[in-house]
Amino acid sequence: MLTIKRLDVKDARLLIDGAKAKAEEIGVPMCIAVTDESSNLLAFERMDGGKIPSITLAIDKSFTATGIRKGTHELGEANQPGQPAHGIASALGGRMMVIAGGLPIRIDGEVVGGIGVSSGTPAQDLEVAEAGIRALIETQSSVKN
Amino acid sequence: MLTIKRLDVKDARLLIDGAKAKAEEIGVPMCIAVTDESSNLLAFERMDGGKIPSITLAIDKSFTATGIRKGTHELGEANQPGQPAHGIASALGGRMMVIAGGLPIRIDGEVVGGIGVSSGTPAQDLEVAEAGIRALIETQSSVKN
Amino acid sequence: MLTIKRLDVKDARLLIDGAKAKAEEIGVPMCIAVTDESSNLLAFERMDGGKIPSITLAIDKSFTATGIRKGTHELGEANQPGQPAHGIASALGGRMMVIAGGLPIRIDGEVVGGIGVSSGTPAQDLEVAEAGIRALIETQSSVKN
Amino acid sequence: MLTIKRLDVKDARLLIDGAKAKAEEIGVPMCIAVTDESSNLLAFERMDGGKIPSITLAIDKSFTATGIRKGTHELGEANQPGQPAHGIASALGGRMMVIAGGLPIRIDGEVVGGIGVSSGTPAQDLEVAEAGIRALIETQSSVKN
Repeated sequence: MLTIKRLDVKDARLLIDGAKAKAEEIGVPMCIAVTDESSNLLAFERMDGGKIPSITLAIDKSFTATGIRKGTHELGEANQPGQPAHGIASALGGRMMVIAGGLPIRIDGEVVGGIGVSSGTPAQDLEVAEAGIRALIETQSSVKN
Repeated sequence: MLTIKRLDVKDARLLIDGAKAKAEEIGVPMCIAVTDESSNLLAFERMDGGKIPSITLAIDKSFTATGIRKGTHELGEANQPGQPAHGIASALGGRMMVIAGGLPIRIDGEVVGGIGVSSGTPAQDLEVAEAGIRALIETQSSVKN
Repeated sequence: MLTIKRLDVKDARLLIDGAKAKAEEIGVPMCIAVTDESSNLLAFERMDGGKIPSITLAIDKSFTATGIRKGTHELGEANQPGQPAHGIASALGGRMMVIAGGLPIRIDGEVVGGIGVSSGTPAQDLEVAEAGIRALIETQSSVKN
Repeated sequence: MLTIKRLDVKDARLLIDGAKAKAEEIGVPMCIAVTDESSNLLAFERMDGGKIPSITLAIDKSFTATGIRKGTHELGEANQPGQPAHGIASALGGRMMVIAGGLPIRIDGEVVGGIGVSSGTPAQDLEVAEAGIRALIETQSSVKN
């Protein structure tokens, strides 16, 4: 039997609220998804003005980043022509996301879930995802101290 | 040109928080989805202990109820053998939900979105969805007064 | 943060070997799937003579039973005409299995995974799934003593 | 009428156990799938720590390699821009795998099944798939002698 650590729904709200604060700061309404460590959806929010295809893009970015335990932008590099994972983007019916904006979340070295952001440029999506994780980590740290 | 009334993300939070309060009261952790008037996902939350298949069930209940502008339990009655819509459950690749727990949300007679709840019995799912809508309506009323 | 208990791959082999022993005893080659507590596939075996559609049926029975934390035969009863979940069989693109042969696995009251069996009659599938779980539980008990 | 040679479930266990031994040696927990000569799943195992998207990636690598009777890395080369099969990766709803780690299994010149491995780098996945086949071939040879 294994024992697994997993984000709870309060963690998910911290992630989404942290991401939203950054999205508002840069003026880009985003779709934001959070998955648990098994890549299953935990929470989602489409800010007013978030894009419709980005609903699925955000969910799938979070699914992918959690599952491969890497940022989706890293898979994007491996998916470029000439690279060994070129073509992986269409695997799993197209759920494998190779665009920046999906990040795994590590606590004490373990992947406990992930976040996916979509509606801006890939760089903006990534920036907002990072802000979400930072908000979670800061709260975790202040709880411990 | 049309002008459409649509839930915003703050309405979605009121709906989810109202639904969660009832879910906690009856002791059943739920998956709760909110869609806008176009049946597109606006917000989602899986309470700790919510069921994995219920992620999709909740989203599809909200999708269906918003789209048909009726509760999914009403479509469920029409889907029973001998009824005119028998078999509709498998339409749209199975997205048409015929189990109680999905409700459209009407403001001033217009459907502005929907809510879908899953993880409990159909009766519990419906009760929690109704509580979500009540929380939204009460806040709307108090804002107007 | 949550802490979750989950089947490991050794547990999965005990489940499959226990199920296979019963399948051989009753002379029905089976497809046998094991999912973890998040309904993700952990192990699968198609015995020689197991049926091709049963590959997916077994996987989806295990997915469903784990997810709803009930036997698929119980969902089958709720899916009968006139019952409140009639029509749920086609949800999730048809992954919701309502035929006997899928069972959740509880250790100390918690669902840690599931097993799904297909190729025989529903009663045979259920009997073989139960035998798999028995084999796991017996080994767990002997380890503790 | 045709007579077909096909892996049996004991062969599948040899393949998986051989692959697992190599995966443990290189310290990368893998998802390992075996398909029969008709590309249908015969056996699957996700080692503890294997990745969730790799469940489908491993199954689809085995499906593809068996079906095209070539390694998935060979299809990967043909899928590169400028090559005649560029774009095949998204065929069959994305099931055509173009990443290393899927291999057909030939006995006496005939394809009798395949193996697919995923969770590591493409090179690691291929190495582990090769080790699985080697374990099968060695056992086959020692049985004959």
